Parts: sequence; structure tokens; C-alpha cells
Amino acid sequence: MILAFVGTAGSGKTTLTGAFGKYLEGNGYSVAYVNLDTGVKNLPYSPDVDVRESVTAWELMEEGYGPNGAIVESYDRLLPAIGEYVSKILKLDGERDYVLIDTPGQMETFLFHEFGIRLMENLPEPLTVYLFSPDILRKPSDFCFARFFALMIDLRLGTTTVPALSKVDTVERIDDYRKFLDDIEYLTARLKLDPSTQGLLAYKMCSTLPELAPPTRVVYLSAKTGEGFDELETLAYEHYCTCGDLT
Amino acid sequence: MILAFVGTAGSGKTTLTGAFGKYLEGNGYSVAYVNLDTGVKNLPYSPDVDVRESVTAWELMEEGYGPNGAIVESYDRLLPAIGEYVSKILKLDGERDYVLIDTPGQMETFLFHEFGIRLMENLPEPLTVYLFSPDILRKPSDFCFARFFALMIDLRLGTTTVPALSKVDTVERIDDYRKFLDDIEYLTARLKLDPSTQGLLAYKMCSTLPELAPPTRVVYLSAKTGEGFDELETLAYEHYCTCGDLT
Repeated sequence: MILAFVGTAGSGKTTLTGAFGKYLEGNGYSVAYVNLDTGVKNLPYSPDVDVRESVTAWELMEEGYGPNGAIVESYDRLLPAIGEYVSKILKLDGERDYVLIDTPGQMETFLFHEFGIRLMENLPEPLTVYLFSPDILRKPSDFCFARFFALMIDLRLGTTTVPALSKVDTVERIDDYRKFLDDIEYLTARLKLDPSTQGLLAYKMCSTLPELAPPTRVVYLSAKTGEGFDELETLAYEHYCTCGDLT
Repeated sequence: MILAFVGTAGSGKTTLTGAFGKYLEGNGYSVAYVNLDTGVKNLPYSPDVDVRESVTAWELMEEGYGPNGAIVESYDRLLPAIGEYVSKILKLDGERDYVLIDTPGQMETFLFHEFGIRLMENLPEPLTVYLFSPDILRKPSDFCFARFFALMIDLRLGTTTVPALSKVDTVERIDDYRKFLDDIEYLTARLKLDPSTQGLLAYKMCSTLPELAPPTRVVYLSAKTGEGFDELETLAYEHYCTCGDLT
């Protein structure tokens, strides 16, 4: 089973890849780790595949690139080797129970760069976990944004995408978050109360979610406490073994 | 009038800010330039406001941050000064005909970080120009993705967002691109032919676009040839002077 953790810088991809892998190993599974971040310094896991063996953002900065340019250029340089990376991951997928993919630090590098798109297109039914952290959720329309973003990833990568709130150990009133994220009807009713242009757009977008989105449930994860890991394991199992029914 | 150019690293924000500003100045307007990118080295314009005076990604990397971490941390450090940046931009807006805002290199830093959200919330009706380059458009579902992304920016920032294809001088068959981007019905009909799961999602999402999106037209820009600059000027005028009707 292949799981790819996708999210913005700071959403907790790398920490979670390490912690979830450890959890799976503790449950007796064999796990492979793939690092796709050319700009990461330290990893909390030992990667079986690591793009930094081909190129790092650091060496490109030494060549004179700025940080943004170095990140983009590193994936331009990785692109010719995409076939090799796909082969390595497929081989690992045949040997181990789980392959966990830790995607580039900046999410857009994965979603907008051909490297990310082509890699995902060539893997057999990977499950994408879209990680977003509680600090991006400040008002009701943000919850609509987060739910829709999972759909955008699905549209872009062509993979089943599970929305996952990370760092739930930092949230005091998690039930308030759950209500907005789990219950689209509740969220839609709440958005209807906001008369602003932004509120109206959020209301209209949220109203279409039930017909657009597969009825995937949201998972609530903490790399610190391991909360939600059993749920994610179940979701991965359902995705691979019961024809993609993630309700 | 305030225009913010938003897009991924490499979509052409900085070059376009410079070139469009020059065009406006050539037409007799007074123009102010705002640079919000902490990681840019050289600018093709002389900034009136520049976040690099407060912090740069470079100095944070010298402190030991990786490129991704340095970018995020730089906006964390800018956050306490957000009020000053808003004031400076408002002052410029009072003095000049146009204020052009060149947003962070990585789009997600602007869309997911409180700095970007709060800045935009506090400006009077800025017009956001969502720049995407032709290389992200490989298959019909990608056109749906690009059109939807403009809507996501609108939802997130609460600003009217114009989708703009950049680097059109690099495209040989621009009419093919226009057909897919301008004519949602045509795109929807085309997507219906794709029986894959991704195709079905794209078809469903695209079908909802007419009711979700304001009927904003797409602009086609080239910083190299100046193509579309008159169109963008007209759109900005319509946004500010004719109650947001951008059809």
C-alpha cells in the first residue's frame, strides 16, 4: 500500500511520516520510507529512497539560486530521472506492506510541478493524505477551503485524497473543529449566515461538496500522541481492500 | 487601485509586476510597487515597500533554517509588523493611481499564512490576479483545476480574483488554450468524454463552475510582448469603477 503525505510547509508531513511509520512497524508491518523533499535537513526516519541523493536545494543555492528558485530548479533536474524513482517505489511496494511517501516541503512544488504529477500518475492507486494544520482554520469559510482543497488535490493528482487535520494535540476544543469538518450540512447552514461576498461564495461552494466529493471521512491526527493512527491504518486498508469505500 | 499578483514560484509574478508597472507608467499613471517576497534576489522594479527591509529568507538560512523553514519563518517574523505594512500600502494607494503587489515566491506562503490573509483582508477591495503558466496545462482536467484555483483564492482571500494565463508568448496554439479556458460549456463537454475517476470528478466540478464563479473573463498575458496589458488595465478599471462587473 502506498500512502503519500501532501501538505504545505509546516503542516507536519515529515514528522507524521516518521511517527506513522513507527506505529505501523510496532504493529508488525514492514514499512518503506520515501523522501521527496530536496530541501529537508534532518529526517526522523531512515529513507529507502531519497531524492537528495540526486540533488539538493542547498547545492543549487550555492550555484546562485534563491531559495524559491532552488526548490523549483531541483525538481526540474529530478524530472529526467522520474522513471527510476517510480521503479524504486514500485519495487518497494512489492517487498513491503507499506510505502510512505513524504512529499516536497512546499506543497505547490508537488501539485504544480510535472515531477509530482507524473510520479503519482505512475503509481498503482496511491492514497493521498492531505494534511492541514489547525492554524489555517480561523473562520467558517476556511473549513470549506480545507475540504475543497482535498478535492483539488484529487482533481490534480488523480488519486483518492483523505483530508486530515494534523497537530490535533494542540487544539483545545477539537469538537468544534470536528463539527465543521465532518458535518457539511452544519457547515453550510453556518456559512449561510455570513452575508459577505466571501461568505456567499463559501456557502455556494460548500453546498456543492456533497455531490462533488466522495463521502470520505476526515481523519484527526497527532504525530505526538499517535491519535488517529488506527483510523488512518483502517482507511488505507479500506482503500486497498474494499474498493475505495472510505465512508 | 490595488492589484496583487498571486501564483506559484515560476508563474511570472515578479517579471509581470515590473512589466505591467512600466506599461502603466508609459500611459501616464503613477505606480507604486510592493515586494512581499522575502526570498527574491533581484527585482525588475524599484520597490516602494519591501519586506526584505525587515527580514530575508537568506539571513534565516544563515541562522540554520532550511529553505522551506526559512520561508515560513520569515512570514512568522513579519506578522507582528502587519499593521505597518497595511498602513504603508494604504498611504501609497492614496498617493498613486496604481499599487502593484508582488506576492511571496511560493503561493502557499501567501494563501496559507496569516500574513497573506490578514494583509488582504485589510486592503480596500484589492483585485487579485491569479497567474498560472501554460506548462501546468497538460490535459483537459488541468484547465478545470486552473479555473477552480482562482475560485479557491477568492474563497481564501475574500478578494475578486481574475484568472490570468501568463507567458502566452511561449504558446504556439493559444486558441486551443482559450477555448478550454473561456468556454466552460465546451470544457465540460470535453471532460464528459473522459471515463476515468479523475475525468468524472473534473466533469462534475466543471459543471458547477458557472453557478459558483462570478462570470470573470480570463486574461492572457505576456510580460515579454505586453500582450493583454490593455485588457488587464480595463479589468482593473471595471473592478474599481463599475461595481465589480468583470464579464
